[in-house]
Amino acid sequence: MNIKIMVRIHAYILAIEAVFMIPALIIALVDADKEASLGFAGAILVAFICACLMSYLSKNAKRKFYAREGLVCTGLSWIVLSLVGCLPFFLSGRIPNYIDAFFEIVSGFTTTGASILTDVEAMGKGLLYWRSFSHWVGGMGVLVFFLAIIPASGRNDGYMLHILRAESPGPSVNKMVPRMRDTAAILYAMYCALTVLDIIFLLIGKMPVFDAFCIAFGTAGTGGFGVLNSSLASYTPFAQSVTTVFMLLFGVNFSLYYLLIMKRFKAAFSDEELKLYLLIVAIAVAAIAINVYQKTAATLSVQDTLHHTAFQVASIITTTGYSTVDFDLWPTLSKAILLCLMFVGASAGSTGGGIKVSRVLLILKSIKRNCHEIFHPHEVRIIRMNGQRVSEKTVMNVMGYLAAYVIIVIVSFLILSADRANFSITTNFSAVMATFNNIGPGFDSVGASQNFSQYGNISKIVMSLDMLLGRLEIFPIIAIFAPSTFRNA
Amino acid sequence: MNIKIMVRIHAYILAIEAVFMIPALIIALVDADKEASLGFAGAILVAFICACLMSYLSKNAKRKFYAREGLVCTGLSWIVLSLVGCLPFFLSGRIPNYIDAFFEIVSGFTTTGASILTDVEAMGKGLLYWRSFSHWVGGMGVLVFFLAIIPASGRNDGYMLHILRAESPGPSVNKMVPRMRDTAAILYAMYCALTVLDIIFLLIGKMPVFDAFCIAFGTAGTGGFGVLNSSLASYTPFAQSVTTVFMLLFGVNFSLYYLLIMKRFKAAFSDEELKLYLLIVAIAVAAIAINVYQKTAATLSVQDTLHHTAFQVASIITTTGYSTVDFDLWPTLSKAILLCLMFVGASAGSTGGGIKVSRVLLILKSIKRNCHEIFHPHEVRIIRMNGQRVSEKTVMNVMGYLAAYVIIVIVSFLILSADRANFSITTNFSAVMATFNNIGPGFDSVGASQNFSQYGNISKIVMSLDMLLGRLEIFPIIAIFAPSTFRNA
Repeated sequence: MNIKIMVRIHAYILAIEAVFMIPALIIALVDADKEASLGFAGAILVAFICACLMSYLSKNAKRKFYAREGLVCTGLSWIVLSLVGCLPFFLSGRIPNYIDAFFEIVSGFTTTGASILTDVEAMGKGLLYWRSFSHWVGGMGVLVFFLAIIPASGRNDGYMLHILRAESPGPSVNKMVPRMRDTAAILYAMYCALTVLDIIFLLIGKMPVFDAFCIAFGTAGTGGFGVLNSSLASYTPFAQSVTTVFMLLFGVNFSLYYLLIMKRFKAAFSDEELKLYLLIVAIAVAAIAINVYQKTAATLSVQDTLHHTAFQVASIITTTGYSTVDFDLWPTLSKAILLCLMFVGASAGSTGGGIKVSRVLLILKSIKRNCHEIFHPHEVRIIRMNGQRVSEKTVMNVMGYLAAYVIIVIVSFLILSADRANFSITTNFSAVMATFNNIGPGFDSVGASQNFSQYGNISKIVMSLDMLLGRLEIFPIIAIFAPSTFRNA
Repeated sequence: MNIKIMVRIHAYILAIEAVFMIPALIIALVDADKEASLGFAGAILVAFICACLMSYLSKNAKRKFYAREGLVCTGLSWIVLSLVGCLPFFLSGRIPNYIDAFFEIVSGFTTTGASILTDVEAMGKGLLYWRSFSHWVGGMGVLVFFLAIIPASGRNDGYMLHILRAESPGPSVNKMVPRMRDTAAILYAMYCALTVLDIIFLLIGKMPVFDAFCIAFGTAGTGGFGVLNSSLASYTPFAQSVTTVFMLLFGVNFSLYYLLIMKRFKAAFSDEELKLYLLIVAIAVAAIAINVYQKTAATLSVQDTLHHTAFQVASIITTTGYSTVDFDLWPTLSKAILLCLMFVGASAGSTGGGIKVSRVLLILKSIKRNCHEIFHPHEVRIIRMNGQRVSEKTVMNVMGYLAAYVIIVIVSFLILSADRANFSITTNFSAVMATFNNIGPGFDSVGASQNFSQYGNISKIVMSLDMLLGRLEIFPIIAIFAPSTFRNA
């Protein structure tokens, strides 16, 4: 392990975080919020001092950087970011328990949106801005941001690839352009453009300016932190529909947008993952709308039912977690469908979480192949995706991912079940699904109108790890704890 | 597809079933139970006529028999067995809905033990005997029985292998001896010996003779149908402990018993699956006992807590489903552990269901390998089990099995959620787990003191299919519905 280069990268990351906190500090000062201002000032100071110290210690770092360094570096940097990023909550005294503050900011950076707060509105504008902005940064990845702004140089391409691979969601990263730095820059440019477009539409929908920025950050990162206790229920139907559309847009693989910019429309629209993603959304909206309409025909019109159903399906499949109604009150079938959507998640290469549609597609194709081979033991079949052959190693990795996913769900579920809160099976299971898949709200005692504050500290740490495992797709976090990491350190 | 040979095998199967029903008919006659006697007489007549007709139609069948025939034949024979086997319930009028009767006997043959009956004791001795005996036959497999009794002949070895593979639980069948017929005969001999031993111990434990036979059948097949409404709660603690031990014994791979008979003790006791199986049991008993004791310290002594915990853990991990207490009333952690044990199941090559311990072990080893390869992309590792190399194809098949398992759970869960009963998420999810893993009772509205009668017909058919999918390990049932089966028919 090349420790020095990792310390150096962490110094940059902390410096970037300090800079990111400055707008939040200004908002807190303008808002005349003394505690929050002191919280941000303290956090910026800590980040800045650490960054200087680490930068000094890591002079003359060698450039040797392999896949393992990329994984450990990515996993560790997210933990460091969160340890410092939660300081404003803690130092301001608004979240007096440090573990609660850590849970809250991990939930922010991993774009989960699960909260331990019972009263969001009491936080003040500065802290609310920082909470929402953490979604925006975490959505595309702070390391990808770092790659996008460092000077272009062939010397850096080695570690860039490993970091981009480790931090981006999905089974594989498409190099859009030959140079990794340019890929990172293009990703962030498209991300900014879509976010600005979202803000403009929200403002047209009569949303207050501050809210529009925060909600757009949460939508772009598919996070789910709002600024009101009622999430998005009190905004205009137009603003809600804008959010529905943009949640779905941010759940699409960003390399497809690049294809659109390059005018390769056919390649973009014939993408198998996109087609399955849209198909799942359409079926889920139809099934839930019919189910909800049948059971609540007295209270909601057809149009309103479709409006809220579309919003909720988009919110859950993209793992955002916003709500316009309390879907925990919906009938059993609707809740079961939402639970399955949590599992599927958004597209690879988007800002959303979950297993990812492309992995689900690959798993289905692999099962089909498996059946065929059991009936015809002497034939060998290959799996294709978008016409291209998928290597056996990729298939094996996706299957291994599913297996690791199942094991993590089971272990987390058992630990949460041992919690002092003694919640129901549904609560504990959906709490694991909601954090591990980076969604936010679950069902029952962690439903859309509830929060995660009742759990004990150990459960909160486990759920924080689950959120990181979900956002970074398991292996960067495992890499930190792997024995080989310590042996070679 | 060689249709004729399949019709011929089905004729034999129905003839065997007719013979198996004769003791039940005699018991019903002795019990002076007119309806049940007529039910059995009718069912035997139907089975006998069908067998004669099919035997006549399939004269001069060719011996050509491949893996696909083996799968389709196994899957179909279990459905035919159940369609005829449920006639005594239906014709006697004791279960007036045919789908309910079908659910009940599928639950019997697949050794699930899930029931739609609210009052078991009202069934009468003849029908109770048949219910329990179906566990015993289904545990080792009726086709394996057929293989064990047909004349030894080299000509039959081809299809024997395919059938034995398709009907026996676990990722691979160990040929204990070169000839398949002898393997089948040895399996049944050991199975009978253990069952007799169980009956003797139960009689020593002061259980009535009729009950001892029925409970032993249910234990041997890891089924779970009892003859009293209170399951095993009213028998002596000695009889309960005997059942605990025998449930665990029937959850062990039978080829290990063969190793013991051959005096290869070291090979038997160093088996990796056996060690993991015992380890899981020990940890689960300890964790649940501590949890239950802490929460119910006022009502149960340490000894009683351990007694009931050991019974329940053995009952769930071996997928038997007997109960001595209503474990649905246990604290959350205990229920969560039991839910996970449902998932794991017993050993491969035993009569138990679930994913099987050896598959879980292989999945864990594969995840470990996957992690290693992600950190060291240029190394290649092989997976070993009991010191022997596991082929990549086997690993892939186990992963494919897990993937198919997850998909079936999700689809079944969605269908049950759409049921008119409108049960909770916990009920529907545990109902799927309890039927698909051949356990029997679930939680909440399908808990140990409840039954499955409230579900609608479609849900009951889906759960019947789940039980068959679970017992036959997915592929024989899929083979029946595969398009290629019809194309070549």
